[in-house]
Amino acid sequence: MSALDRVRAALDAIARHDGVINAFTDVLAERALARAAANPAGPLAGQPFGAKNLFDIRGIPTRAGSRIRRSAPPAEADATAVARLEAAGAICVGALNMDEFAYGFTTENSHDGPTRNPHDPTRIAGGSSGGSAAAVAAGMVPFSLGTDTNGSIRVPASLCGVWGLKPTYGRISRAGATLFVAALDHIGPFARDVTTLAAVYDALQGPDPRDPAQLATTVEPALPSLEEGIAGLSIARLGGWFEGPQSPAARRAVAAVAEVLGARETVIWPEAEATRAAAYLITAAEGAGFRLPELRSRLEEFEPLIQDRLLAGAMIPAAWVFQAQRVRAIGQASMRALQAKWDILIAPATPIVASPIGQEMLTLDGVSMPLRPSLGLYTQPISAIGLPVVAAPLPQAEGALPIGVQLIGRPWQEALLLRAARVLEKAGLCRAPVAPAFAAS
Amino acid sequence: MSALDRVRAALDAIARHDGVINAFTDVLAERALARAAANPAGPLAGQPFGAKNLFDIRGIPTRAGSRIRRSAPPAEADATAVARLEAAGAICVGALNMDEFAYGFTTENSHDGPTRNPHDPTRIAGGSSGGSAAAVAAGMVPFSLGTDTNGSIRVPASLCGVWGLKPTYGRISRAGATLFVAALDHIGPFARDVTTLAAVYDALQGPDPRDPAQLATTVEPALPSLEEGIAGLSIARLGGWFEGPQSPAARRAVAAVAEVLGARETVIWPEAEATRAAAYLITAAEGAGFRLPELRSRLEEFEPLIQDRLLAGAMIPAAWVFQAQRVRAIGQASMRALQAKWDILIAPATPIVASPIGQEMLTLDGVSMPLRPSLGLYTQPISAIGLPVVAAPLPQAEGALPIGVQLIGRPWQEALLLRAARVLEKAGLCRAPVAPAFAAS
Repeated sequence: MSALDRVRAALDAIARHDGVINAFTDVLAERALARAAANPAGPLAGQPFGAKNLFDIRGIPTRAGSRIRRSAPPAEADATAVARLEAAGAICVGALNMDEFAYGFTTENSHDGPTRNPHDPTRIAGGSSGGSAAAVAAGMVPFSLGTDTNGSIRVPASLCGVWGLKPTYGRISRAGATLFVAALDHIGPFARDVTTLAAVYDALQGPDPRDPAQLATTVEPALPSLEEGIAGLSIARLGGWFEGPQSPAARRAVAAVAEVLGARETVIWPEAEATRAAAYLITAAEGAGFRLPELRSRLEEFEPLIQDRLLAGAMIPAAWVFQAQRVRAIGQASMRALQAKWDILIAPATPIVASPIGQEMLTLDGVSMPLRPSLGLYTQPISAIGLPVVAAPLPQAEGALPIGVQLIGRPWQEALLLRAARVLEKAGLCRAPVAPAFAAS
Repeated sequence: MSALDRVRAALDAIARHDGVINAFTDVLAERALARAAANPAGPLAGQPFGAKNLFDIRGIPTRAGSRIRRSAPPAEADATAVARLEAAGAICVGALNMDEFAYGFTTENSHDGPTRNPHDPTRIAGGSSGGSAAAVAAGMVPFSLGTDTNGSIRVPASLCGVWGLKPTYGRISRAGATLFVAALDHIGPFARDVTTLAAVYDALQGPDPRDPAQLATTVEPALPSLEEGIAGLSIARLGGWFEGPQSPAARRAVAAVAEVLGARETVIWPEAEATRAAAYLITAAEGAGFRLPELRSRLEEFEPLIQDRLLAGAMIPAAWVFQAQRVRAIGQASMRALQAKWDILIAPATPIVASPIGQEMLTLDGVSMPLRPSLGLYTQPISAIGLPVVAAPLPQAEGALPIGVQLIGRPWQEALLLRAARVLEKAGLCRAPVAPAFAAS
């Protein structure tokens, strides 16, 4: 298929389905068709993709899901991640819906409307990269770009049933992306198959002096070793905190992945809960710190769900945050010790499948808890310490919603995780089919 | 002279003079004599030294100038810096007085008493490493260890008329040292001559996995190139902020150093003042963050001068500190651009010579200002961005007090600064004579 055919197919799918799904905030038909006509070469030649609406895309304002940015001037240049994908031959067809300023797990955005789950449009797509996951799950684009601060790639990947990769902190340049919490923000791809996920990840790699968090990065392509399997790798399940409140579907998914990967032992990371608490505090305080000027001058324009969290965050004393940073460092050190023995650790991605849009509370194992923050129960401790994670999707029986499992690696070992993901894919356990409603079209 | 003779001479000088000067908080005669009897070999063979009382020294409590730590258990091991000097043959003879928890520029410590300036015992020695500078200025030890967060090596070096080196942030391991502000703390030596300063610095170098700030360090000995001079180096004076309120002595000192080093141009770093403000905020907030448990439980035992600053610091919102960190990053980037052209920049170390103990206010150029924080006017913007600095001492005419000048380099270029320092020493402009009162003894 030519680049032009691919881009036309994507634009057509968006036109037919996105009225329901609401994954895209901006469709860039003219830009995409012009690029396709030039037939760009490279490992991603002619493949259309979308980018979460916090990446700068030349010619449109980077709104980051907010009303405040609605009248921002158009970006003058593409973000590094967008530019790298296009340099590899891919074609950006639009910007994708998200929680305001990436602060949420549900993409219930009141300015742009909620993104709907392609497997059941009455349900959430997860967030904050909900548009990115839904666009892939609905088959509108083969891959997309998102960001993950506390779970914002892994949560929507799990709820929409697509592959997601949150690389090591500092691996991918964030230049030109609107930051939420600089200390925790990661960029990564969604895709419908592991080979595409790895190819997109490879295209994104490379140092960029414009992102100071990237000092330690190197280029380590994952595609060349993708088919090498997992013989010799040590793989275990994470117990303790990660066996906390969750649905039977989440438990079954972890058990099934462990079975295929031959993970027999369950290991404990005792600092998981404290590390999550530290991430919570750092997120609220630094998230608010970034938005201080707007909180002062345009408070009423913030998303109601986010306004209060940012206001509270703005009043957290720095002394507490410094303590949270030390707690996080302790958690990081203890995980490093645990990982000395284990190449890959398995944990749930979300405690539940996609919930109905607007649902506030959740009852699990007899305990009632607020739904929205609980979606990050098992992702948040891992991103807090910057580890790479593949979120692997498990389709469920006819009519049931998909759910994801985290494959967690040592820093800079994305390639190992992708090898294991490919094993799960080849075994037929994990895959990201186009949601049924869209498959026939 | 044998190691035993050197140590006995040091212990004797301490016994005779420290009753007035009050540089030492602990004298370790037994430990030092036992080590001297073993005749340790190495580049610093047999040389006695003292360490600021925030370095762990096995067998005595690390009090960091505080009453709260008075009943702390004795340290079980030497700090890395102390251990490295002893591995190079040096002999630790005691611990040195300081501002409580290193938060001050005057060493007016109400628990241990003020350290007095060897050039005039009615005056301050500067701080927070006041004991370290005074012990060298009074000839009790040939070199000593201090720390510098906002100027705590350079200020007392300037007021006591000794050489001081604040290396690049992350160069020297801080393991086993009581931190004040982890983001800003540096370890460095004081000495009476540049060759000793360089030899001690060389002995301190080397990575240490116990200090996470050291990730980027390498070992780059300064001694081998010490006599190479400054031909070909580009050297300028820092103007703008650094030409602000200061005594005629400070202005003359900078001019004299510029003359000998052939620095004709004056260059401006526009972000100096904002960077200093950022350092101020980060110091107060992170300093308080480290002391939160003691502030909660033992508030009344803090130094009166420091108690209020820490309490105020504990209430600074994290959102402000994150903004300060961004301001600091902007300052760092603009200085990096300036330093692309200049190997060495010259600035005053302190605006004035040593002031009388207890003095609160200072009038300079017709403006009245609080004396204590103003001592760091010109050091604080530089340490905030982690640059290496040599504080070079200029003796004044008979009866007048010495004052220092900062030689500021690019990150990791301590060796260049020490070469320039050696040029100033050989030219006879900069030197650190034993204070007159002690020279005869």
